[in-house]
Amino acid sequence: MGTIENILIIGGGGMVGQKLAHALAREPLTPGTTSALTLMDLGFPPGSPAGARQITADVSDPAPLRAALAERPAVIFHFAAIVSGQAEADFDLGWAVNHMAFWHFLEAVRQEHLASGGSYCPRVVFTSSIAVFGGPYPEVIDDGFPPAPLTSYGAQKAACELMLADFSRKGFLDGIAIRLPTICVRPGKPNKAASGFFSGIIREPLNGQEAVLPVGTDVRHWHASPASAVGFLRHAARLDTAPLGQRRALNLPGVSCTVEEQIEALRAVAGNDVVALIKPQPDPVIESIVAGWPRNFAPERALALGFRADADFRAIIESYIREDLAPEQAQRLRLR
Amino acid sequence: MGTIENILIIGGGGMVGQKLAHALAREPLTPGTTSALTLMDLGFPPGSPAGARQITADVSDPAPLRAALAERPAVIFHFAAIVSGQAEADFDLGWAVNHMAFWHFLEAVRQEHLASGGSYCPRVVFTSSIAVFGGPYPEVIDDGFPPAPLTSYGAQKAACELMLADFSRKGFLDGIAIRLPTICVRPGKPNKAASGFFSGIIREPLNGQEAVLPVGTDVRHWHASPASAVGFLRHAARLDTAPLGQRRALNLPGVSCTVEEQIEALRAVAGNDVVALIKPQPDPVIESIVAGWPRNFAPERALALGFRADADFRAIIESYIREDLAPEQAQRLRLR
Repeated sequence: MGTIENILIIGGGGMVGQKLAHALAREPLTPGTTSALTLMDLGFPPGSPAGARQITADVSDPAPLRAALAERPAVIFHFAAIVSGQAEADFDLGWAVNHMAFWHFLEAVRQEHLASGGSYCPRVVFTSSIAVFGGPYPEVIDDGFPPAPLTSYGAQKAACELMLADFSRKGFLDGIAIRLPTICVRPGKPNKAASGFFSGIIREPLNGQEAVLPVGTDVRHWHASPASAVGFLRHAARLDTAPLGQRRALNLPGVSCTVEEQIEALRAVAGNDVVALIKPQPDPVIESIVAGWPRNFAPERALALGFRADADFRAIIESYIREDLAPEQAQRLRLR
Repeated sequence: MGTIENILIIGGGGMVGQKLAHALAREPLTPGTTSALTLMDLGFPPGSPAGARQITADVSDPAPLRAALAERPAVIFHFAAIVSGQAEADFDLGWAVNHMAFWHFLEAVRQEHLASGGSYCPRVVFTSSIAVFGGPYPEVIDDGFPPAPLTSYGAQKAACELMLADFSRKGFLDGIAIRLPTICVRPGKPNKAASGFFSGIIREPLNGQEAVLPVGTDVRHWHASPASAVGFLRHAARLDTAPLGQRRALNLPGVSCTVEEQIEALRAVAGNDVVALIKPQPDPVIESIVAGWPRNFAPERALALGFRADADFRAIIESYIREDLAPEQAQRLRLR
């Protein structure tokens, strides 16, 4: 019988958290171990992996968090966040959850570290975001480009990166912040992220529904599939952090493409009738938010550390069809 | 009779705060107004300017802060901080004061803004630090060099810059963060900053006392006199912030010189006998901290915005002699 590896996923009820949990249940992080998964979130969809413990709690609530940490998980994934659009609309909530609750989380880990006499020092994988950057951008953003967020969400994530680095430098925990590309294609319902349409224009048409395109087709953006995100998270959890030095935040690889290239990839995979379901309907608010986002990266450090993204946007669409499209929809596409 | 301009100095009991208060009492920020000064700090030295109100309070204590903000000062200077060496030694205290208390300060200003129906939007001048940067450095640091702090103090200041920028972007206040060079020559007793010796090797000898030099003479650093700091603060308080855009943190001008150049400037001003009071006594801890600090900047943005530093290190020494050296010590130097 193998060893048990305790893994805590804060924000484990969300889309990426659920995919990660299923992946860890299928294949443990450390070969020869069994993952004992604890998921913490405000709520959970049906279908969490069998054997995963679910703690329904607000990440801002200290008691359940402390209880989960008292079991000294070897690896903690932290995704809990108010998404960008909502953090921009609700200033208090965004700073309270994305910044203050993360501080209290780090402090709770530190208290466990101190209570252990210094032996407990978990890997903490924090999902940051390319929203830490603000324009004007160079054509391609390299690893030396300075964070200068232009949204509350971006400012909150950048502040969390600073805290995580300082707690790591002090040896209280072993943190790594990964700046995820926009996750695309997100399955399920649209969320409140201003980036939602990047998924919507692929997901809705593949499901036989119309999708609104609120920006021009020349808009370029930086994408990774949920499957790539799960791969990034697993890799970040096992990575030797020594080569990171004190620079614990990484720009991750992704696929840079325009909306037009997204649409053409969809056409190649699913045909003209599917593409015809995309309805251009410019929205100046979304256009203005998206205009402030990065478009392309040269993530040399992450590539050197072995992080790998999707091959191209077509691979991203195929990943969605394989992982998330309902069988009857996939069937309908094959019959066209 | 002129208008009254309310000015609040948080950390007004410290060295720079006191010098600023005296300068504002002599010459108001806005010509034709009279400065009504409120100073808040844990304590005050004798000799605050006549008419300045002193509030003895911890900046972490919300009630006195709210009371001071209820008077809606047009300009708020915020210096309150745990210095670098102490923030490194006392992790809790550093994050509590330098980060959390600053957050609560910003939030208290925002509540006044909201209570005013949006009309109250004070200028907030925040003293950040070159400690937001971490090595390896280029020979000269330009305005695009990314913050990557290697100390708790630097991480706290960098996080505060992010908050200040976001509150400013939202229009709750009108903030500017100035990354001060190391202030040299600090008058009075040494404080707990690891940078203290840069002042000590000038101040103690000019006062006829021995000074320990804990690093090699080839160490290069970035300095500004207290008089320049007061000038920076006044300039930041009156500056049109529109050209800053969302980038509200500025590297300020200073004097880049080696310890050897400091010593030679001291020799030129005060002679060999004074220089002989400097006693080299290498301290590996301080050497290692200082090795992580920036040495030279090209602060183009701040220069374009009209910030001006001392001409050279000799001017910094002369500024100390003029402003802070006791008359009998100055007399002794002239008699040598």
